[in-house]
Amino acid sequence: MKLKMMYSFLNSDINIIEKKLEETIQAESLLLKQASLHTLQAGGKRIRPIFVLLAGKFGQYDIDRMKNVAVALELIHMASLVHDDVIDDAELRRGQPTVKAKWDNQIAMYTGDFIFALSLELMTNIDKPAAHKILAHTMVEVTVGEIEQIKDKYRFDQNLRDYLRRIKRKTALLIAASCQLGAIAADVEESIHKKLYRFGYYVGMSYQITDDILDFTSTEEELGKPAGSDLHQGNITAPALFAMENAGIRCEIEKVSEYMEYGKIERIISLIKQSGAIEKSISLSDRYLDKALQVLEELPSNKAKKTLRDIAKFIGRRKF
Amino acid sequence: MKLKMMYSFLNSDINIIEKKLEETIQAESLLLKQASLHTLQAGGKRIRPIFVLLAGKFGQYDIDRMKNVAVALELIHMASLVHDDVIDDAELRRGQPTVKAKWDNQIAMYTGDFIFALSLELMTNIDKPAAHKILAHTMVEVTVGEIEQIKDKYRFDQNLRDYLRRIKRKTALLIAASCQLGAIAADVEESIHKKLYRFGYYVGMSYQITDDILDFTSTEEELGKPAGSDLHQGNITAPALFAMENAGIRCEIEKVSEYMEYGKIERIISLIKQSGAIEKSISLSDRYLDKALQVLEELPSNKAKKTLRDIAKFIGRRKF
Repeated sequence: MKLKMMYSFLNSDINIIEKKLEETIQAESLLLKQASLHTLQAGGKRIRPIFVLLAGKFGQYDIDRMKNVAVALELIHMASLVHDDVIDDAELRRGQPTVKAKWDNQIAMYTGDFIFALSLELMTNIDKPAAHKILAHTMVEVTVGEIEQIKDKYRFDQNLRDYLRRIKRKTALLIAASCQLGAIAADVEESIHKKLYRFGYYVGMSYQITDDILDFTSTEEELGKPAGSDLHQGNITAPALFAMENAGIRCEIEKVSEYMEYGKIERIISLIKQSGAIEKSISLSDRYLDKALQVLEELPSNKAKKTLRDIAKFIGRRKF
Repeated sequence: MKLKMMYSFLNSDINIIEKKLEETIQAESLLLKQASLHTLQAGGKRIRPIFVLLAGKFGQYDIDRMKNVAVALELIHMASLVHDDVIDDAELRRGQPTVKAKWDNQIAMYTGDFIFALSLELMTNIDKPAAHKILAHTMVEVTVGEIEQIKDKYRFDQNLRDYLRRIKRKTALLIAASCQLGAIAADVEESIHKKLYRFGYYVGMSYQITDDILDFTSTEEELGKPAGSDLHQGNITAPALFAMENAGIRCEIEKVSEYMEYGKIERIISLIKQSGAIEKSISLSDRYLDKALQVLEELPSNKAKKTLRDIAKFIGRRKF
């Protein structure tokens, strides 16, 4: 089943979110508007808004309230992508030129700042101090994670724990916050919104591990960038870490630098793929997915719960 | 009288603010901690925290509450400086190497993001929805102003109105917000905190115009960077705009580019200084200062009011 089919009962609300996203980034500054719109239209799965809406279904779901949170979380995600593309010196994202490629690094930095400020402004429509505390703390952790990711580049002596802490901050915490804030905005009781947070955290971990696997196993066409880009850029992910358990492969991986020619990178990628590291990474992702599904079992039964289950399975096991 | 003498009755509270600033930027990440601490220790006048505290004196002043707002506003200011140094490619600020110079642009971008996230987290200690709305809206305007500033670089067909709108966003709005949020945190009634906002806005305008004048009239030693840097970097400020009323000087100014050698820039700066543009800029700054002092007259009399008057006069007419 396609991802979009899973939440088709939310279609009209998702259209409201898309419209609100476009409305929100209407800036007085033409340059900002173009750069923000460019980012918005590059697309994406809108996973975070969907989690916000589904979590809201466990409480007093009011789309006028929910849309502020849903749009705010997508904007925060967008802002962090715009900044990440500066760091990664990325020319393409999802097959489209990045803001830093189409304009420059400086425009990209301020466009990210602007989109982030817009998201905060939207969130102020939610009169729940707890929601603001959770979001602000998430942002602190996300930015710490971003710096750690730079620091850990090409650092081959890191272990799986370093990696897991990094992807927690990079991905899982914002998905966890999406679930929890959607629930809080719908007045869901604390015991439930804390479970939704844990669900989001586990799904987010599984999602990022899968993403990191796909960077090795997908084609350039599917990825919109060359396979193995993560490793080439010094981002040491689960497959590389598992492959490094073999001393010979470890020695090869330690040679990787940004100056290594692509042919050599390809040879190392195929070594990693043959080492069993992909299978170990899939099993790691599955363990997080299982935990997510277990937490879900503790939640009241409704349509949203079934959809969360379908989506969790989809994004944990997706092939592209 | 020295600036510090004007608010000496706040000394113990300012020490609390300095301590809280240091505490707040204690990051788990050593790199982030070092980069943030470096920015913090580069100093600055701490004008925004002082305005927060003084505005709080018009209401129920509680330093435990006030310090969150005071530190948050200084951190927002610091975060924007760190990002601005990336844009301006600045090696020095206040005579110290910038984060982008000491580390690199990428570290500076994320350090700015981190400091900004910390400020938001602090602000969540203030249970006043109005305060969050004002702050978020201010951030949107500030980021729009930052993009406009890039767009307006070396654009010699701009007028004084463009300049005033830019410095409003760049400087005045955050000082206005400092005054208003300090008051709101101290439960000051709306009619008063709106006046404090207007006071801060006018002082901020006068402050920035003075800053822009000093960039022409101070020595390299006083500025910590070469005089006329603004113009050289394409930032067209009040003195240049007034000087361009003369067609001959206008023609010279229009030749300025980042590639122009410094000797030629020096010649243009002296043309601007001889044109009467500095005097016109001082008079513009004074008009804003007068408006600030007028608004102040409408406020209840107390020690804070007297101090705000002294500080306004000082920063509007300072010589360095």
